Amino acid sequence: MQALPGFRDFLPDDCAARNYIFSRWREVARRYGFVEWDGPILEPTELYKKKSGAEIVDQLFNFADKGEREVALRPELTPTLARVIAAHEREFKKPLKWFSIGRFFRHEKQQRGRLREHFQLNCDIVGETALAADIELVALCIDVLRAFGLTEKDVVVRISDREFWTDFLQQKAVPSDRWDELLQVIDKSGRESPENTRAKLGKLADPVFAILRGTKSEKLERLVDGLRALGLADFVTVDVGIVRGLAYYTGIVFEVFDRAGKLRAIAGGGRYDNLIGQLSDGAVSMPALGFAMGDVVLGEMIHEHGKAREKMQQAITADRKIDIYIVIAKEERRSDALTYAQQLRDRGYRVDYPLASAKVARQFQTAEQLSAQLAVLFGDEWPQVAVKDLATGEQELILNQELLAYLARSLSLSS
Amino acid sequence: MQALPGFRDFLPDDCAARNYIFSRWREVARRYGFVEWDGPILEPTELYKKKSGAEIVDQLFNFADKGEREVALRPELTPTLARVIAAHEREFKKPLKWFSIGRFFRHEKQQRGRLREHFQLNCDIVGETALAADIELVALCIDVLRAFGLTEKDVVVRISDREFWTDFLQQKAVPSDRWDELLQVIDKSGRESPENTRAKLGKLADPVFAILRGTKSEKLERLVDGLRALGLADFVTVDVGIVRGLAYYTGIVFEVFDRAGKLRAIAGGGRYDNLIGQLSDGAVSMPALGFAMGDVVLGEMIHEHGKAREKMQQAITADRKIDIYIVIAKEERRSDALTYAQQLRDRGYRVDYPLASAKVARQFQTAEQLSAQLAVLFGDEWPQVAVKDLATGEQELILNQELLAYLARSLSLSS
Repeated sequence: MQALPGFRDFLPDDCAARNYIFSRWREVARRYGFVEWDGPILEPTELYKKKSGAEIVDQLFNFADKGEREVALRPELTPTLARVIAAHEREFKKPLKWFSIGRFFRHEKQQRGRLREHFQLNCDIVGETALAADIELVALCIDVLRAFGLTEKDVVVRISDREFWTDFLQQKAVPSDRWDELLQVIDKSGRESPENTRAKLGKLADPVFAILRGTKSEKLERLVDGLRALGLADFVTVDVGIVRGLAYYTGIVFEVFDRAGKLRAIAGGGRYDNLIGQLSDGAVSMPALGFAMGDVVLGEMIHEHGKAREKMQQAITADRKIDIYIVIAKEERRSDALTYAQQLRDRGYRVDYPLASAKVARQFQTAEQLSAQLAVLFGDEWPQVAVKDLATGEQELILNQELLAYLARSLSLSS
Repeated sequence: MQALPGFRDFLPDDCAARNYIFSRWREVARRYGFVEWDGPILEPTELYKKKSGAEIVDQLFNFADKGEREVALRPELTPTLARVIAAHEREFKKPLKWFSIGRFFRHEKQQRGRLREHFQLNCDIVGETALAADIELVALCIDVLRAFGLTEKDVVVRISDREFWTDFLQQKAVPSDRWDELLQVIDKSGRESPENTRAKLGKLADPVFAILRGTKSEKLERLVDGLRALGLADFVTVDVGIVRGLAYYTGIVFEVFDRAGKLRAIAGGGRYDNLIGQLSDGAVSMPALGFAMGDVVLGEMIHEHGKAREKMQQAITADRKIDIYIVIAKEERRSDALTYAQQLRDRGYRVDYPLASAKVARQFQTAEQLSAQLAVLFGDEWPQVAVKDLATGEQELILNQELLAYLARSLSLSS
């Protein structure tokens, strides 16, 4: 029996890599003053049918539960955020800066960088229309990537403004029920042949291509200036061809790619100033913006960049280390050994020992495999115990009553 | 729109409490040398139909996905562990000490301490038959509770041995297809009237009641002796009436309750030496044992015990604090302020600032609400900035070029 296709088992090494990603995500979001929140993994299907757009709804893991409720595994977090904000916004001072780390699900064809179950960091700012919020959000997204050791040579943030296009469609008197479809065509234009795009755009083709060839947006320039003050402008390119697939974006939108162009988008987001109002049927109107970053493409990115990979490996190794391995050379010392194991664990040390009797050499081998810093041997020398530094090989005999004080000294010195 | 019944939204305070529980779980498991792993949230339904027992299967969130696979949201982790171990056991030296923290789902009637989506810590030892493994596991379970500030006055671990009962049923020549049913009756006997239990047990009633009134088990006594060496015996009571609902247990089983007897079980577990073999159709035979602890009853327990509640509150407050709030008194200083915000965040400080212009008094109010340690004011005094310690109220004017060095000194002194 295996995991379902598109779902992953996380063996200890995989889990450590995942935890490394989570802890960097969490650390940088907190540096920016974001606070963590979360929602359920299962939501009413209706929450996504209302606003997420056709592609997401087609790929839902949805079903009727035993109480005949129509439910779905969450494909994205923004509708949950809008639901929660609409219900609780009065409890919080605006703007809110919230982040969340969790699992998301899409029933789509398996392909590189796309799984059916994956993890995302979501960061959102709610209740602020000022462009300073867009700058803060894009800067956070960039700094999260920097925390993994990725640089402006490795990744690029393509920034656009959907308002720019909706203004254009309004100007051209395009009926609003065609906007979603046309925005999708513009969004895909970079990956399609110009002929195909032309055919789909009809009369709009010429003006759209003129804009794509190079139009200035004062708002986007101010955004880039803001990022320049932070020293982050080299990560950013204005690319009005970016529109984003999700239907609810209303303003600045952005996507992050590897410079080499080999991978899918690493992250993406933007403003969705109307979504909270729409989901609450107008009860709560609240500007908002956010981005999501998935663990799968990011993981591929880390693996392909030597420095980032090394940084991850070091963090994983350091995190896995145990402090003390207790070698039980004589079974009649097991009870004494366990008493000390307990006292050391109580003081916060990571301690392991053999659960069954084993040869001393084999126990030392285990201690090495667990990257223990020290081994403490309980055996013939009792009431003395032997403390061995596994890095230097130095060994010392001490009275067992002095063990705790001795270890407090030697472990604090070496860490 | 609300969350589905039995599902929770985690607003920042709830999420901080949840993260506090997770971090204590993780910390203590690591002190015991356990390493983290995880599986998918969705599994083939068959995985649970095979071995989890009727109650769990009745409460599955299960459905056919868009590829017509029968799938289920995981109700428990042990079948996934057995699946993963059967596939990968050769890659690891035994015994394995693995833990996992994640979401689980049961479609059951909502009641106190039971939700449809909850979180569990799972800790398992795989590949060791020695009783030392049972001792290690129960000790870990107790130490996890101690890490929350709970004592032997607050919680009790009821320990039993299912083998004891299966030996008995074998002795009495009860056909094995009736064992599950009879074990359930024995398990529930503490909560049922003796008459009901008698009626259900029939001829077996007298010997069963004789055993429940007090029978010694040499294995259980050795287990308690082992815990005594660790100073943990006061947490433990032998209670052969505990059998556990899950069908796959084969040896030592235990459940943790509040001493006051007001809450459901906080944790439970035991040995399941045959499960891995059964799930792998005999390909891999491997003794194993583990326990699970849910976040819901544990959370109630923490809230009902002053010391534990206070400990949690302190951790949450400390964790949420930001280091520096930047007050922008003049909008023309925003760009300078942001440049410093970026540099401070780059050095690992938690920094926030206003996204829109606001009165200085209101900004200081925000700084207090965010529990910032210091406020740095960018305004008329430029090129000097004012650094204010928000605890003492002390304020100092310094040249902006000296800010980073100054903060490095004052923040390292106070933390």
